[in-house]
Amino acid sequence: MSTFGHYFRVTTYGESHCKSVGCIVDGVPPGMELTEDDIQPQMTRRRPGQSAITTPRDEKDRVIIQSGTEFGVTLGTPIGMLVMNEDQRPKDYGNKTMDIYPRPSHADWTYLEKYGVKASSGGGRSSARETIGRVAAGAIAEKYLKLAYGVEIVAFVSSVGSEHLFPPTAEHPSPSTNPEFLKLVNSITRETVDSFLPVRCPDAEANKRMEDLITKFRDNHDSIGGTVTCVIRNVPSGLGEPAFDKLEAMLAHAMLSIPATKGFEVGSGFGGCEVPGSIHNDPFVSAENTEIPPSVAASGAARNGIPRPKLTTKTNFSGGIQGGISNGAPIYFRVGFKPAATIGQEQTTATYDGTSEGVLAAKGRHDPSVVPRAVPIVEAMAALVIMDAVLAQQARHTAKSLLPPLKQTINSGKDTVGNGVSENVQESDLAQ
Amino acid sequence: MSTFGHYFRVTTYGESHCKSVGCIVDGVPPGMELTEDDIQPQMTRRRPGQSAITTPRDEKDRVIIQSGTEFGVTLGTPIGMLVMNEDQRPKDYGNKTMDIYPRPSHADWTYLEKYGVKASSGGGRSSARETIGRVAAGAIAEKYLKLAYGVEIVAFVSSVGSEHLFPPTAEHPSPSTNPEFLKLVNSITRETVDSFLPVRCPDAEANKRMEDLITKFRDNHDSIGGTVTCVIRNVPSGLGEPAFDKLEAMLAHAMLSIPATKGFEVGSGFGGCEVPGSIHNDPFVSAENTEIPPSVAASGAARNGIPRPKLTTKTNFSGGIQGGISNGAPIYFRVGFKPAATIGQEQTTATYDGTSEGVLAAKGRHDPSVVPRAVPIVEAMAALVIMDAVLAQQARHTAKSLLPPLKQTINSGKDTVGNGVSENVQESDLAQ
Amino acid sequence: MSTFGHYFRVTTYGESHCKSVGCIVDGVPPGMELTEDDIQPQMTRRRPGQSAITTPRDEKDRVIIQSGTEFGVTLGTPIGMLVMNEDQRPKDYGNKTMDIYPRPSHADWTYLEKYGVKASSGGGRSSARETIGRVAAGAIAEKYLKLAYGVEIVAFVSSVGSEHLFPPTAEHPSPSTNPEFLKLVNSITRETVDSFLPVRCPDAEANKRMEDLITKFRDNHDSIGGTVTCVIRNVPSGLGEPAFDKLEAMLAHAMLSIPATKGFEVGSGFGGCEVPGSIHNDPFVSAENTEIPPSVAASGAARNGIPRPKLTTKTNFSGGIQGGISNGAPIYFRVGFKPAATIGQEQTTATYDGTSEGVLAAKGRHDPSVVPRAVPIVEAMAALVIMDAVLAQQARHTAKSLLPPLKQTINSGKDTVGNGVSENVQESDLAQ
Amino acid sequence: MSTFGHYFRVTTYGESHCKSVGCIVDGVPPGMELTEDDIQPQMTRRRPGQSAITTPRDEKDRVIIQSGTEFGVTLGTPIGMLVMNEDQRPKDYGNKTMDIYPRPSHADWTYLEKYGVKASSGGGRSSARETIGRVAAGAIAEKYLKLAYGVEIVAFVSSVGSEHLFPPTAEHPSPSTNPEFLKLVNSITRETVDSFLPVRCPDAEANKRMEDLITKFRDNHDSIGGTVTCVIRNVPSGLGEPAFDKLEAMLAHAMLSIPATKGFEVGSGFGGCEVPGSIHNDPFVSAENTEIPPSVAASGAARNGIPRPKLTTKTNFSGGIQGGISNGAPIYFRVGFKPAATIGQEQTTATYDGTSEGVLAAKGRHDPSVVPRAVPIVEAMAALVIMDAVLAQQARHTAKSLLPPLKQTINSGKDTVGNGVSENVQESDLAQ
Repeated sequence: MSTFGHYFRVTTYGESHCKSVGCIVDGVPPGMELTEDDIQPQMTRRRPGQSAITTPRDEKDRVIIQSGTEFGVTLGTPIGMLVMNEDQRPKDYGNKTMDIYPRPSHADWTYLEKYGVKASSGGGRSSARETIGRVAAGAIAEKYLKLAYGVEIVAFVSSVGSEHLFPPTAEHPSPSTNPEFLKLVNSITRETVDSFLPVRCPDAEANKRMEDLITKFRDNHDSIGGTVTCVIRNVPSGLGEPAFDKLEAMLAHAMLSIPATKGFEVGSGFGGCEVPGSIHNDPFVSAENTEIPPSVAASGAARNGIPRPKLTTKTNFSGGIQGGISNGAPIYFRVGFKPAATIGQEQTTATYDGTSEGVLAAKGRHDPSVVPRAVPIVEAMAALVIMDAVLAQQARHTAKSLLPPLKQTINSGKDTVGNGVSENVQESDLAQ
Repeated sequence: MSTFGHYFRVTTYGESHCKSVGCIVDGVPPGMELTEDDIQPQMTRRRPGQSAITTPRDEKDRVIIQSGTEFGVTLGTPIGMLVMNEDQRPKDYGNKTMDIYPRPSHADWTYLEKYGVKASSGGGRSSARETIGRVAAGAIAEKYLKLAYGVEIVAFVSSVGSEHLFPPTAEHPSPSTNPEFLKLVNSITRETVDSFLPVRCPDAEANKRMEDLITKFRDNHDSIGGTVTCVIRNVPSGLGEPAFDKLEAMLAHAMLSIPATKGFEVGSGFGGCEVPGSIHNDPFVSAENTEIPPSVAASGAARNGIPRPKLTTKTNFSGGIQGGISNGAPIYFRVGFKPAATIGQEQTTATYDGTSEGVLAAKGRHDPSVVPRAVPIVEAMAALVIMDAVLAQQARHTAKSLLPPLKQTINSGKDTVGNGVSENVQESDLAQ
Repeated sequence: MSTFGHYFRVTTYGESHCKSVGCIVDGVPPGMELTEDDIQPQMTRRRPGQSAITTPRDEKDRVIIQSGTEFGVTLGTPIGMLVMNEDQRPKDYGNKTMDIYPRPSHADWTYLEKYGVKASSGGGRSSARETIGRVAAGAIAEKYLKLAYGVEIVAFVSSVGSEHLFPPTAEHPSPSTNPEFLKLVNSITRETVDSFLPVRCPDAEANKRMEDLITKFRDNHDSIGGTVTCVIRNVPSGLGEPAFDKLEAMLAHAMLSIPATKGFEVGSGFGGCEVPGSIHNDPFVSAENTEIPPSVAASGAARNGIPRPKLTTKTNFSGGIQGGISNGAPIYFRVGFKPAATIGQEQTTATYDGTSEGVLAAKGRHDPSVVPRAVPIVEAMAALVIMDAVLAQQARHTAKSLLPPLKQTINSGKDTVGNGVSENVQESDLAQ
Repeated sequence: MSTFGHYFRVTTYGESHCKSVGCIVDGVPPGMELTEDDIQPQMTRRRPGQSAITTPRDEKDRVIIQSGTEFGVTLGTPIGMLVMNEDQRPKDYGNKTMDIYPRPSHADWTYLEKYGVKASSGGGRSSARETIGRVAAGAIAEKYLKLAYGVEIVAFVSSVGSEHLFPPTAEHPSPSTNPEFLKLVNSITRETVDSFLPVRCPDAEANKRMEDLITKFRDNHDSIGGTVTCVIRNVPSGLGEPAFDKLEAMLAHAMLSIPATKGFEVGSGFGGCEVPGSIHNDPFVSAENTEIPPSVAASGAARNGIPRPKLTTKTNFSGGIQGGISNGAPIYFRVGFKPAATIGQEQTTATYDGTSEGVLAAKGRHDPSVVPRAVPIVEAMAALVIMDAVLAQQARHTAKSLLPPLKQTINSGKDTVGNGVSENVQESDLAQ
């Protein structure tokens, strides 16, 4: 489907060569100041040709709000947004190479298998231009999350090919045990990330290694994949809807819906599967002395006296999510992107009807690695997931607040001395 | 939410200590033979204490169909199913250790943050008993997929801790290049997997290594994670709903909704991000001489003359999915499970209100690794995803079939000689 | 589909002759006291054979909560509920009359057209037993709405055949102009309605007329339809989700999903289409001096200081809904039920295959009018609609409350003298 | 919400004074010829100022397809469509009458109660311009339904104020017993309806009465409501999804989501509640000799050999729907529209804050009755409902077709002589 989310619903439209691409965002909270200026920056970070990113005003990929705001304030009604396609003219229809041969590992073949027809020009709906609507919608979600809770979402390139920012080691099979990684997760900003253009890996040395590798692949008319790591800070606790819409499940869904993705891991991830439980479990500690970040102190939640969680964890193997629900600690995850399928080298393929084989090669310039431009798309999808979960939890919390108070629901434990022993509970092993 | 799927909708209910756990499955095709005997085997593979798995009739976790069938045939109406909980009685309510201290890396704390109340006994809704409804529903989906298309879904344990069946190597950063892996993917059966109980790793040597490792952790009152690999064979081409509900996105959502999961990768996965595009692209070849598997030959699709795809790919880095849509090749993916949070060792934690710290340890026996029992749950969730995608695609295909035929939509290429050169298309880089 | 609602989601299962009928209710606010005693009364009002309604404990149609509560308090997790079917045994399968002839105006024929198979016994899924799950779920919604807002939902029989409680007249084409009707709407209680058993028309004289009419039809082995009117009082303003899920649209959907319904009208209804706009428009007046009903004063909303609307309307042709959104005035609507299709008289029909005709007649006792038992079903569906709308609006309101305050959004008008003239706005004519 | 439908999903955006209004239609079958020429006619029938309806080319309300087609053929991807608003400039913000006083029975007050902000110009989202997206989407659905099944949807004005085309009489409390009505339902076309512009009541005498009545109300600066009747012919049997999404429930939802509606009745409707069951039941008869309408004979269903139902009914009190499922007979229903709230007469109202009262009157010309322009909106919403139900049923039917054939599921009755007696089945009374 072309709709994402239950409470904050984003529906996108558009192919690579139609009139425009865009989206409708339903469920935007009313009364929020919003103009194109809130949205354009992420659009610009996403668009191709960003060596010109510093150009003060670039007309390319300009988003235009169609509805849902008046005098720069959201009305609570659906926000329509669109970006005109510059090259709207589909190719002449006929006996072209692209009509005969599906490009290897592109969506040409599967789209035709699925729909029985396909766009004859470019990637059609599978083009990365489809992500424009997502990024526009994500910018709205981000603005709300920042204003209401001080949420910060920052993604960066963590590997290109085999060049990693934090390569897994015997000591650190999971980044969760790497203090350098945790420090970065706690402090990284978009400004820092964008100071490492064009690769967007926030470490000078690693950035250089990655840039060199990309250059090598470009010169070989080849491509290479990589990974993007994303952190979401200052997430309120309680987000995520068991059983099927656990917060990590929604993040995984969101990330794997981005074109060219092959993997997702959250918190300790695959590396964490190799860490003993005795180390991997995150001990609870009092959050009393935790510093309140400035964006949280300035948020609507703080202004409205919404209490902060009383507990936090010493370590964060969980990546901010336990039992499918956020615990207030930073959420971090990694997304894997395959090498771009479009390469200048010749590749063998077969005709759509399978009757003969042929050779295909891409002309012109193309991006040898997609990960730098994927950064704002990952951030946008993360924002959509958190926003949807926030609205769901706000509804539940408000609903509960109108009920008569219950008698004590959980023991305060104040006059109890520790050394507790939990009773073993059948079937709790997967319950985490 | 507690509902999964758009066309084949599964809604589950139940906590660890309530009367029963179960589900309602809406959207089951009418006219399919179905009794408890179709469902119980996977329930039994899932349940705890499977050293007794060979017991011919075990009363534990018996599923009972409540509705939706008559005389052993589905009516097309919702199928209600339930399994009684044996220990329904919640603990007496009071000043118990478990009421004072949240268990580290369990869902105790986050459930209370989310709901303001929590089940006082065991894992509540976060218990693995919640997965019973999924497995029951998955068994129905599997039966349909087998009858209609000859689909085969087989999962197995691919690693426990650092013991891997196919460890990543410099030569094979992704399993997709490993011929041993590909051979297994093409042939593995559930019978073979279950011949390697209790670990369910289908290789005698690796199985032994893993069993020894689990034993070591058990003896240390510790736990260890692992990974489950799953293959889905004979999937019809055309499944998956762009843009947001790409087939891999739905699989990722499904897998990360299983308790204790930390990662998902499909096809070449994270390893594939390190493989050059020139190798990673899967060349198309004619499928003319591909052997038809017996389960496909016996399927309803074959009986109804539904044509097989005309193309296949030489390699399968894509893992059977391109542009979010199945291409007919085997779909394979890997799911990471963290170490079980319940361990016998003492662990520090804090009281719910953050006022004091304490120490918690689990009594009794508990499973030091969850992956063997996760196998049927992974299979069930995979079946739910494929089933939902099948119904969506059947609707589209049938809708199209009633339209007047179009003039030529794609060039047959029959009288064209190859060596084609694709024109470079703006923004196609992420379009894959 | 067998699911109703977006935020408060009810999924039902069950046929007339399967093991049990029931439902799963997802989205129930956590922390609410809830036991079977809250649900059973409406189940009992719904069930057949209510001459025995005063029996202190009747084992028939006993609802059993399966999950989602502990110690009588909701956990926020799905509430599974079921009622065992007393006659679970489907008829022997074979050459019975019912297998040959579809009953006129029953669902026999269309179910077979739809599903290709059908339950051989009774109404299958089209049986009124399917409504058991709705009534159980509605009782939970009702309890919340009462506690949180003091909402009161009361339905009663307003006509049987041509015997009306408030027959339309030249003076009162719509009940909205009838002071007797408005008085009833403002004050009627379930206790009063049930004091007029078995018909449930809250007027001694009309009740008698209706009972006599029903008796006449029973004696003729015939059946007769009727209407149920329902009022929802103390609804918070702001409920209903434009554009498609306007409050009246959801009510209409809910009511027409009840078996045997043929019509729905809200507020002035069809009669209001004959009233001039100059009379039909509801003038706004200050709500300052409006009395607060006791159930509202005792509600969570009052306890939490949620302000009451500042305006109300002099008349209530709108039926409490304007622009698809509740305005705080009583919502009232009417639902039409056709005569029961099951009658003792002989009726002609044809065989399923259309090859021959035949005659069919129902044996035994049957209810000559369904409207008395429809009363609690109408109430339940109304509760589900309001509950879903409440959760949606609570989410929006809370989301907004965390945003920075806006500059003035609407003029207070305090220092302006009236006699305003609105500018005519293109296309506003349907905008109401 | 701003989305309608599960399989054919329409999402709309737009207020009265924003840049554009439009929609995204997801789930359109691929491979259908589609251009703006298929959509514009209904847009033009809907737009204001239709005395100029015969103008060969009018630039107002021109729909532009943004995506989802190439070379005039649908791709199966979302179809974005928009219509520019001519008067996009919201009024200057400030102390205007409209900012002080909510218009009686408009959505001004409730929108502010719901969202806390509101559009300061015109009806905002509650404007009839919101229906533009519905009509555009409906035109796509209609085209498919016509091509695939020969479906014909025609609506007409059946009453204005107390002037009725078929007034209820003692003989015909329901139109279902009126042969004139049934004849019209079987034969009426849009061309005939539009030959009775501006009222669109397809009877010269009634049309004149209605036009005179409208003129009278216009001269009085007043408004008057009315009803629109709609018929859907050649609907395939089997449409509608029990339990909650019965076909009549979806139609009721759709119709009551149109601005200014107050009631819905299907088939015999409210009048049918007064007809005895012995008359109201529709006897089944063989459909063998039923004439195949030309549009059906030319449809894709006929071309693909999809069999027609074997049974039909002698009468059609059911209005083509039994048990929530279409039976193949014409579906007909009636929708009630209240008098337009915008009138030239002065009306009392109060300030938003309730502190003072005032008088409001509309300047300029306005439409004294909305029903003529509501005709294409009713048709569009009907098309959306049928289309969604068609896709759902196609999915089910195709799913079933791939299953192994069952043994006999329903007795053919060929060698049975009639006079059957059905056994009375508990609870079947509401089951219809």
